[in-house]
Amino acid sequence: MTQLEKRIRDSQVTISQVMLPTDASAYGNIHGGVIMKLVDDAGAIVATKHSRSIVVTVAVDSMTFLSPMYVGNLVTLTAALSYVGRSSMEVEVLVEAEDPLTGDRTHTNTAYLVYVALDDSGRPREVPPLIAETEEERQRVAEGSERQQARLTRRQKGT
Amino acid sequence: MTQLEKRIRDSQVTISQVMLPTDASAYGNIHGGVIMKLVDDAGAIVATKHSRSIVVTVAVDSMTFLSPMYVGNLVTLTAALSYVGRSSMEVEVLVEAEDPLTGDRTHTNTAYLVYVALDDSGRPREVPPLIAETEEERQRVAEGSERQQARLTRRQKGT
Amino acid sequence: MTQLEKRIRDSQVTISQVMLPTDASAYGNIHGGVIMKLVDDAGAIVATKHSRSIVVTVAVDSMTFLSPMYVGNLVTLTAALSYVGRSSMEVEVLVEAEDPLTGDRTHTNTAYLVYVALDDSGRPREVPPLIAETEEERQRVAEGSERQQARLTRRQKGT
Amino acid sequence: MTQLEKRIRDSQVTISQVMLPTDASAYGNIHGGVIMKLVDDAGAIVATKHSRSIVVTVAVDSMTFLSPMYVGNLVTLTAALSYVGRSSMEVEVLVEAEDPLTGDRTHTNTAYLVYVALDDSGRPREVPPLIAETEEERQRVAEGSERQQARLTRRQKGT
Amino acid sequence: MTQLEKRIRDSQVTISQVMLPTDASAYGNIHGGVIMKLVDDAGAIVATKHSRSIVVTVAVDSMTFLSPMYVGNLVTLTAALSYVGRSSMEVEVLVEAEDPLTGDRTHTNTAYLVYVALDDSGRPREVPPLIAETEEERQRVAEGSERQQARLTRRQKGT
Amino acid sequence: MTQLEKRIRDSQVTISQVMLPTDASAYGNIHGGVIMKLVDDAGAIVATKHSRSIVVTVAVDSMTFLSPMYVGNLVTLTAALSYVGRSSMEVEVLVEAEDPLTGDRTHTNTAYLVYVALDDSGRPREVPPLIAETEEERQRVAEGSERQQARLTRRQKGT
Repeated sequence: MTQLEKRIRDSQVTISQVMLPTDASAYGNIHGGVIMKLVDDAGAIVATKHSRSIVVTVAVDSMTFLSPMYVGNLVTLTAALSYVGRSSMEVEVLVEAEDPLTGDRTHTNTAYLVYVALDDSGRPREVPPLIAETEEERQRVAEGSERQQARLTRRQKGT
Repeated sequence: MTQLEKRIRDSQVTISQVMLPTDASAYGNIHGGVIMKLVDDAGAIVATKHSRSIVVTVAVDSMTFLSPMYVGNLVTLTAALSYVGRSSMEVEVLVEAEDPLTGDRTHTNTAYLVYVALDDSGRPREVPPLIAETEEERQRVAEGSERQQARLTRRQKGT
Repeated sequence: MTQLEKRIRDSQVTISQVMLPTDASAYGNIHGGVIMKLVDDAGAIVATKHSRSIVVTVAVDSMTFLSPMYVGNLVTLTAALSYVGRSSMEVEVLVEAEDPLTGDRTHTNTAYLVYVALDDSGRPREVPPLIAETEEERQRVAEGSERQQARLTRRQKGT
Repeated sequence: MTQLEKRIRDSQVTISQVMLPTDASAYGNIHGGVIMKLVDDAGAIVATKHSRSIVVTVAVDSMTFLSPMYVGNLVTLTAALSYVGRSSMEVEVLVEAEDPLTGDRTHTNTAYLVYVALDDSGRPREVPPLIAETEEERQRVAEGSERQQARLTRRQKGT
Repeated sequence: MTQLEKRIRDSQVTISQVMLPTDASAYGNIHGGVIMKLVDDAGAIVATKHSRSIVVTVAVDSMTFLSPMYVGNLVTLTAALSYVGRSSMEVEVLVEAEDPLTGDRTHTNTAYLVYVALDDSGRPREVPPLIAETEEERQRVAEGSERQQARLTRRQKGT
Repeated sequence: MTQLEKRIRDSQVTISQVMLPTDASAYGNIHGGVIMKLVDDAGAIVATKHSRSIVVTVAVDSMTFLSPMYVGNLVTLTAALSYVGRSSMEVEVLVEAEDPLTGDRTHTNTAYLVYVALDDSGRPREVPPLIAETEEERQRVAEGSERQQARLTRRQKGT
């Protein structure tokens, strides 16, 4: 392991936040956009920690929100790298909602976002390679690599 | 045209907002999550106006952010329906950024979101059918219908 | 039409925003100050777009708020230039509120604000002349010019 | 003095706040709309304290902002009643800005706002009469009464 | 272990957040009050999760902020119960700041807060007893119990 | 009195603010952390005005919140210096809550915070001595000096 290589757990973060009336419709259900913003906040922290540089979001995969979230819910986002290219990083973000009064907990969605590290002049810069330590992590990174290939293919097709 | 049917332009909206330091990294580039939240804000207004009911975001398609946005930029979101099902509505949101000091304007991304209308007990309710008035609008709705079919197919496959 | 001259529609903007509990009293009616701030936000965008420079608000005319606005209402502000002097610009802002659940729409008030364009050292700088394209626009600018004369007269009187 | 009557100083308030980057343009000068919102916040507290009821802003007089305010400035608003009708109350708000690092202090503007007290069904309700205790206060209230007469006259004229 | 008893790790939470310009002075150092608020946010989540009821902060111990925090720092708060009485709960909150660009990490302060669980009528209600699973946890709870005794003694003395 | 010496009233401030739904739990009671942040806001203004320099919070004494505060309450913070050392300043902040609809007013808590003035390179700098003008003020400063001695003793003990 060279000095530059980094493990998934070196940049992993967990963010918890209680949903406020400001985050909701007048009827208490949390806006999807609030979740999207939290997902990007969490992903950007991971990418910044891994690359030790400024990062920008360049892509976010489709998301589905099947179970609603309400005011007062404690949302927990667990974010970790799932693939690292030359200057791009894919982060997987798991979103869970908990009603702190009942303890009911649901997995609301999983998101995949791609960040690019920038140097001081705003151009893409190389990031440290990612070390997968277990078979499970190697599988995770292989799937991330496939998703990134699919994204590049879609972009070439002009979609 | 029955009373319930509605045209695309009946619910279309344009939102403009100046990007603040709060929306950006310490280096001035706007966080992707801020754009995602604005996109959902705009989409939710359109879906609420068409259905005249509470709506929840159930899906957002993948997005790519190719040109960065900066503090001081004026972001304009143009949102309009692109497909309407029984209780679900797809909204297309075009995002453009303008530097108000130079007038430079770029199309940063296009997003597709799906909303479901809810009745008072929180269950899906029927929404008015959508009227496409021109050939261009009919083409637009046909494409939206295809995207929604693809989403349902993906969900059945468990992706 | 010289290169510097600009039309009213070149800088016109529309802003829409849903009113949140944070914008209201504990009883749901939106604070007048929230509307005033949105009105100035809209006016400043117009003045910045016309002058392509930093602007400061130097005056706002009296406003009357006759119909109240509530949490959940969609407020739409339509802002456009109504007079341009050497370095000062008057913007007219129309405020409308819509209940997105019923479609009820009311014109809540009209505001007139004056902005001054500043150069890099913070001193007033010249702005492009305004082109009135129709009889209606010429009438609009004539009225704006009268309001500005009245403001200057009031200031000389020390009121 | 009956139990219902109240003195000017019974409802007077002072609000101080440090201006943040969020309140300013990218160049540090505070937006006029931020001041307008603070002015209404202060006025609404005074009207609520005098009437002990919900209040809504119904009018704000023209304002002129001659000296700019900057990020880091301490703005102090001193708000007190200047006239009380049957259900309406006029509040005078003095705005001063201080650079806390130098102690430089400027009077940036004075605002006059009119509030109406509402009962539980949202209709105007009577408010306590105002007691002017000194010659200076009687003069102040006389001027407020004149301003209110002028507002009513303007409204009848349809301006 | 009865059903009501709960372990320290059952309610423990970690919150991470990037410090914004809004949280700082015009010179970039984060306001102590921003840290205090985050500390209380984290503590309240822990107390809510343990008691499954509404909680109010009744006391916070003295805090010392020796190393400053800056805009762009990632602050991580680790909060866990350190003592549980009949209706009161003491939470220990460790605050660490990390510069995500360099990886430098400092322990900025440790806080102790006391919360009381409330029933629907707003009166204190009993909370589940706390299980200390290891020798280290038993030591932790013993120290928390001493701090709570000291607080009650100080209050009786009227300090 | 040399030019540098300053009186307590020269830097004293009063801040009033209405508590919003954003500041409260879903059940309307204001979070302790919101009060802590306001207390630090008020204290920092006083320390900045006395020292005419950037300040950082280095310590806050323990606080007890006995009477709860609710959405809609008007909170008033009165902050004034209670001791000044070479580069450190202790500020006393009195917190009062008022229900503006009933006029009920309660003293919720008193806080003591210590700030240090910084020069341009971020190192502690000397601040003007404090003048106690009355016997009451001299008593106040003597008590502040004792609290500061106790803090320094506690820190040497490593607590």
